Amino acid sequence: MAVIISFEEEQAKADTALLRLQALVADDMIKVNHTIIHKMQSPVSLIPKLAGHLIASGGKRLRPMLTLATSLMCGYKGERHAELAACVEFIHSATLLHDDVVDESDLRRGLETANAVWGNKASVLVGDFLFSRSFELMVADGSLEVLAILSNASSVIAEGEVLQLTTANDMNTTEDAYMQVIVAKTAALFAASCEIGAVIAEESKAKQAALKSYGKNLGIVFQLIDDVLDFSAEQKKLGKSVGDDFREGKVTLPIVLAFRRGNTTEREFWCRTIEELEQNDDDLKKAINLMKKHNALSDTVERARHYGSIAKDALAIFPDDEYRKALTDIVDFCINRAY
Amino acid sequence: MAVIISFEEEQAKADTALLRLQALVADDMIKVNHTIIHKMQSPVSLIPKLAGHLIASGGKRLRPMLTLATSLMCGYKGERHAELAACVEFIHSATLLHDDVVDESDLRRGLETANAVWGNKASVLVGDFLFSRSFELMVADGSLEVLAILSNASSVIAEGEVLQLTTANDMNTTEDAYMQVIVAKTAALFAASCEIGAVIAEESKAKQAALKSYGKNLGIVFQLIDDVLDFSAEQKKLGKSVGDDFREGKVTLPIVLAFRRGNTTEREFWCRTIEELEQNDDDLKKAINLMKKHNALSDTVERARHYGSIAKDALAIFPDDEYRKALTDIVDFCINRAY
Repeated sequence: MAVIISFEEEQAKADTALLRLQALVADDMIKVNHTIIHKMQSPVSLIPKLAGHLIASGGKRLRPMLTLATSLMCGYKGERHAELAACVEFIHSATLLHDDVVDESDLRRGLETANAVWGNKASVLVGDFLFSRSFELMVADGSLEVLAILSNASSVIAEGEVLQLTTANDMNTTEDAYMQVIVAKTAALFAASCEIGAVIAEESKAKQAALKSYGKNLGIVFQLIDDVLDFSAEQKKLGKSVGDDFREGKVTLPIVLAFRRGNTTEREFWCRTIEELEQNDDDLKKAINLMKKHNALSDTVERARHYGSIAKDALAIFPDDEYRKALTDIVDFCINRAY
Repeated sequence: MAVIISFEEEQAKADTALLRLQALVADDMIKVNHTIIHKMQSPVSLIPKLAGHLIASGGKRLRPMLTLATSLMCGYKGERHAELAACVEFIHSATLLHDDVVDESDLRRGLETANAVWGNKASVLVGDFLFSRSFELMVADGSLEVLAILSNASSVIAEGEVLQLTTANDMNTTEDAYMQVIVAKTAALFAASCEIGAVIAEESKAKQAALKSYGKNLGIVFQLIDDVLDFSAEQKKLGKSVGDDFREGKVTLPIVLAFRRGNTTEREFWCRTIEELEQNDDDLKKAINLMKKHNALSDTVERARHYGSIAKDALAIFPDDEYRKALTDIVDFCINRAY
C-alpha cells in the first residue's frame, strides 16, 4: 500500500527544518549578531541608523547560518566561523541596499526600504560602507583563501546584477540566460557561504567542492522560488509587494516559460507589458492567469526540485549527522516557501 | 634685492611638475594601464563598455602615479607596484561612478557621465564590480598588510561620503566638519596610495608613516583646490560644469568661509540658496562675488598651502633624489590648478 503524505504534512516538515537549523546554530548566531551590530557602528550616525534598519528588519539570516552549519558539520571548533558569517551577511546586506536602489523598491521584509526612507544616495553609500567593512573583517580574519573566495563571489554577484539589467525588458531572454543571471547574482554567495565553512575547518578539497556545489544549487532553488513568489499571493506573508518583477519588466523564469509556451496573442501581451512596460490595472492578474494556464509557476518549482536534488546529493559524502540532516531538509524548506 | 618670480613662471614650473612625474613613471604606467584594461573585462559586455567610458575619459591617474613614484623612491624593484596601482585606480573609479549617481552629475572630464549615458542602475552595479575586482587583484597580490590599508581606506571613504550627505544643505557646517569630510572621502585614498608604496618596498614604519602623511595632506590640498575650482571659470578647462557644488547645496570650504564672514543679508542668501535650494539665474554669479568680497576662494587656497607644506615636510626624511623632487613639486602643481 502506498504511503500518502499529505501536502500539509510536507509543509510542516519543511517549516521545522528551518527551526532545527536555527536551533543547531543558535549559540553561534548570537556571536554573529553581536559582530554585525558591533561592526556596523560608525561615528557617522546615519550609517548604523540605515544599516540597522535593514539588518534589524529581520531576514532569516540564511547565508550566515549556512556558514555556521557547514563549518560545524566539518567539525570546526574555533571562533572564526562567526566572524566570517557576519562578513557574508554584510556582503548580502550591501547588495540588498544597492538592489533596492536599482529596483526602485519601496518595500522589503514588510518595511519601507532604506532608499524609500533615506533616499538613494544614502543607500548607495551605506552599501559601499558595509561592503568595505566586510573586507576589513575578512582581512582581520587573515585567510587569503577565504578572501579569494568571497572577493570572487562579490565580483560575480556584481556581474550577475549587470547581466540582469541587460536581460530586463527583453522577451528574447532564454532560460539559459536567466539561469546565468541567478547563478551569478544569488547562487555565488550561497556557494561561497558554504565553501568557506569547509575551508576554515581545513577539510579536503573534495569536501570544499561538495559544499560549494551544495550552496550553489541551494542558491538556485532559493532564487527560483523567490521568482515564483513574486507572482504568488503567499508573497504578502513575506512582507513584499506582489508583482514587483512584473512591474519592472524583470524577465524571470515564470515569464520566460509563459512567453515561450504562449500563442501569438499571448506573446504580444508579454511584449507590451514587459518590453514596453505598458501595463493596465488588470495586467498582473492576466499575467498570473497565463502562467497558470501554461504551468509556468508549477514548472518553475519543478526546476527548483531538480537543483534541490543536486544540492542534497552533494552532501552525501558527509557523515549522516544532525547537521547534514538539517542542511538537507533546508532545501525542502526553500522549495516549500512556494506554497 | 628681492627676487620677484612672476605668476606665470610659477604656473609653468607647476605644470612641468606633472610632466616630470609622468615621465618618471611612464614605463610602469603602461603596465598599470594594461592591467586596468585587462581586469575590467567581463563576458557581460556592458561592464567593459561603461567602465571603459570612465577610464578612457582620461583622468590624470594621479593616485596610481603616487603608488608607482613612492615605491620607486623607496627603491622597489618588483612588479607588484603596477598591479596595486591598478587596484587604487579601480577603487577610485568605483567611487567616481557612485559619486556621479549620488551627485546626479551629467558631466565628468568633459564627457557625459556614465549615469547620464547608461543610467544610475548600471553605474551603481559596475561600480560594485570594479570595487570587487580591485579586491580580487589585491588578494592575488597576497599581502594582508596592503589589504588592510586599502580595505580600511575604502570604508573610510564610504564613511566620508555619507558624512558629506549629512552636511549638505546645512549652513551650520563648520570648517572642522568640512575637513572631516574631505580627509575621509578624498585624502584617505591618497594616503593609502602612497603608504602602500613604502609597504611593498619593505621600508621602515617611519617611512611608511611619512608617505601616509604626505599622501593624506596632498589629498587635502587636492580636494580644497577642487572645491575652489567649482567656483572658478578655469573649471571649464577641466571639462566640468562650473557651480555644480552650489547647485547641489554641497557645503564646501569657500561657502563655509563666505557664510561665516558675511552679514545678515548675505547669510540669508546662503540659507536660501544652499539650505532651501531656491536659486535664481544670477545666484551663482552673486555667490562668487560674495566669495571674492570675503576672500573665501583665495583663503581656501591659503589653507591648501598650509596642508601642502605639511606634505612637503613629510617627504624630508627621504634622500633628495628625482622622485622626492617630483613628489614635492606635485604639491605645487595641485595648488596651482586653482589659477
